[in-house]
Amino acid sequence: MSAPGQSAAVGIDVGGTKLVAAALAVDGAVLDRRRQTSPVGDPDRLLAMLADMARDLGPGLPVGVGVAGIVDGDGRLVSGTNLGMEDVSMRQQLAGELGVTVAVGNDANVALWGEFQAGAAQAVRHAAMVTIGTGVGGGLVIDGELVEGAHGYAGELGHLIVDEGGRRCPCGNLGCVEAYASGTAIGAIARERLAAGGVTSSLNDEEDVDGRAVTRAALNGDAWAREILREAGTWLGVAMASIVNAVDPELIVLGGGASTHSAGFLIPAATATMRPRLLGHERREPPPVVLAELGDDAGMVGAGLLALHRSR
Amino acid sequence: MSAPGQSAAVGIDVGGTKLVAAALAVDGAVLDRRRQTSPVGDPDRLLAMLADMARDLGPGLPVGVGVAGIVDGDGRLVSGTNLGMEDVSMRQQLAGELGVTVAVGNDANVALWGEFQAGAAQAVRHAAMVTIGTGVGGGLVIDGELVEGAHGYAGELGHLIVDEGGRRCPCGNLGCVEAYASGTAIGAIARERLAAGGVTSSLNDEEDVDGRAVTRAALNGDAWAREILREAGTWLGVAMASIVNAVDPELIVLGGGASTHSAGFLIPAATATMRPRLLGHERREPPPVVLAELGDDAGMVGAGLLALHRSR
Repeated sequence: MSAPGQSAAVGIDVGGTKLVAAALAVDGAVLDRRRQTSPVGDPDRLLAMLADMARDLGPGLPVGVGVAGIVDGDGRLVSGTNLGMEDVSMRQQLAGELGVTVAVGNDANVALWGEFQAGAAQAVRHAAMVTIGTGVGGGLVIDGELVEGAHGYAGELGHLIVDEGGRRCPCGNLGCVEAYASGTAIGAIARERLAAGGVTSSLNDEEDVDGRAVTRAALNGDAWAREILREAGTWLGVAMASIVNAVDPELIVLGGGASTHSAGFLIPAATATMRPRLLGHERREPPPVVLAELGDDAGMVGAGLLALHRSR
Repeated sequence: MSAPGQSAAVGIDVGGTKLVAAALAVDGAVLDRRRQTSPVGDPDRLLAMLADMARDLGPGLPVGVGVAGIVDGDGRLVSGTNLGMEDVSMRQQLAGELGVTVAVGNDANVALWGEFQAGAAQAVRHAAMVTIGTGVGGGLVIDGELVEGAHGYAGELGHLIVDEGGRRCPCGNLGCVEAYASGTAIGAIARERLAAGGVTSSLNDEEDVDGRAVTRAALNGDAWAREILREAGTWLGVAMASIVNAVDPELIVLGGGASTHSAGFLIPAATATMRPRLLGHERREPPPVVLAELGDDAGMVGAGLLALHRSR
């Protein structure tokens, strides 16, 4: 086992716009980092860049990669819409190239692993994470292990169906929680209501209202914007109730860029919604919903620590 | 390890009307069995009866108990409505009395363990179970381990919320899948539609239509009854889609008394509903939904094999 302060793994977060990579200590501390532009639509170039970053930051160390997309149980990127790629055997090719343990996971799953090993969920054995950004992602740790499922598709908590037949989700279905609580959905709902008129809000005069604008307005005291976030939090609470009834976590971590400033509105609404919906609620408290601690580094740190975990 | 044919554990299923107990071989084969009337409302009597049955069937062997109710992580019966009991430290008291490993679990959870060890889910490492009876129960096995959660409340898949604000569930909430797909719900929905009139069904003349009557009529070719079961199967499919998006099992076992004869209607509807609702559905098949194999013995066998598993 490496000493603190010594590099133990390389973690890389592959997003639709940038690749961020770091040399990590065993405790997840970032010792050195790199950043490059994502080669959208060019999987060969992506694999070459990842291999170079890994050799540069930590030759011979385990490498973890978190990717925004659907990743199967063997670390194959099945579908990465923002990256413009599909069917890329990332884990296999990188492991062959580098000769080290390589772990490749969905970005939300590895972010939860980061929070579990080095962030908001360190004190527990059972945790769920819900990430709110462009979409709604998620992850589950049960009894200290990341749940990847039979084919690597586990943890897609944004596609828990809370309102069958309801709002259209980007996945094509109706009524997934992502359709009500993603940053994109919050913006869309705000625009629909403004377009319908009769609204008193500081956002009346803005043209391109998005989730960020709604949060900004809510923080500035706009009651109409606060109500939109409260409703999004309520739908999150419905999904969280299903999660808790299914797997009974000790803690739910709320992460993702769109949650950072809106958490003060989302978390109370989600918790109040969850409480009466848990089986046996007369005798139990809902698990605390806490804000992620690793911020934008969660995926990178989690991916590296997952590779380290698997190399042992 | 015991030889086949030799008793290795005792399994007991505690229901609202009867206690059934068996001496089990390592492979779950039932070697000897007992049956008694449940002492409703008398926890001391229940514990004494369980201890007697265990000593009688397999002195010194691990004892597993499955109970219809909410059981916490330490095998305490938090609430057993049909048994008329609450807050009974079953595991602790039985272990103290018998001096052997005792496992106590929720009936649906231990039933899945039985199917996983000795029934329909033997070939997989990741399985979910949905049981349909008076209510809708469930269980999860992930990577070969029963998921009990942080406090023992995991696996309550009947309380996945599929239609927030929808039908009233016996748990008090609106829109749980149990409110649409339990035997009780199927009977209630049938009665509501008959009362509303305009129905052409062989059930028109029956007074106390229940889930069983609907299934019987459907098996006899009654299109109206078949449609009711198809709708229940559709709701089951919505809940199953959420389960698969969350934990990605290889297989879903359908069990419980109310599913035995209705499965031919429920399973096709559930599978067809699940298919388009799975993230990445363009590239994956929904997991097979298969009928439980152990029937009424699943809870008893699973409880005993779980105690055996824990004693090792």
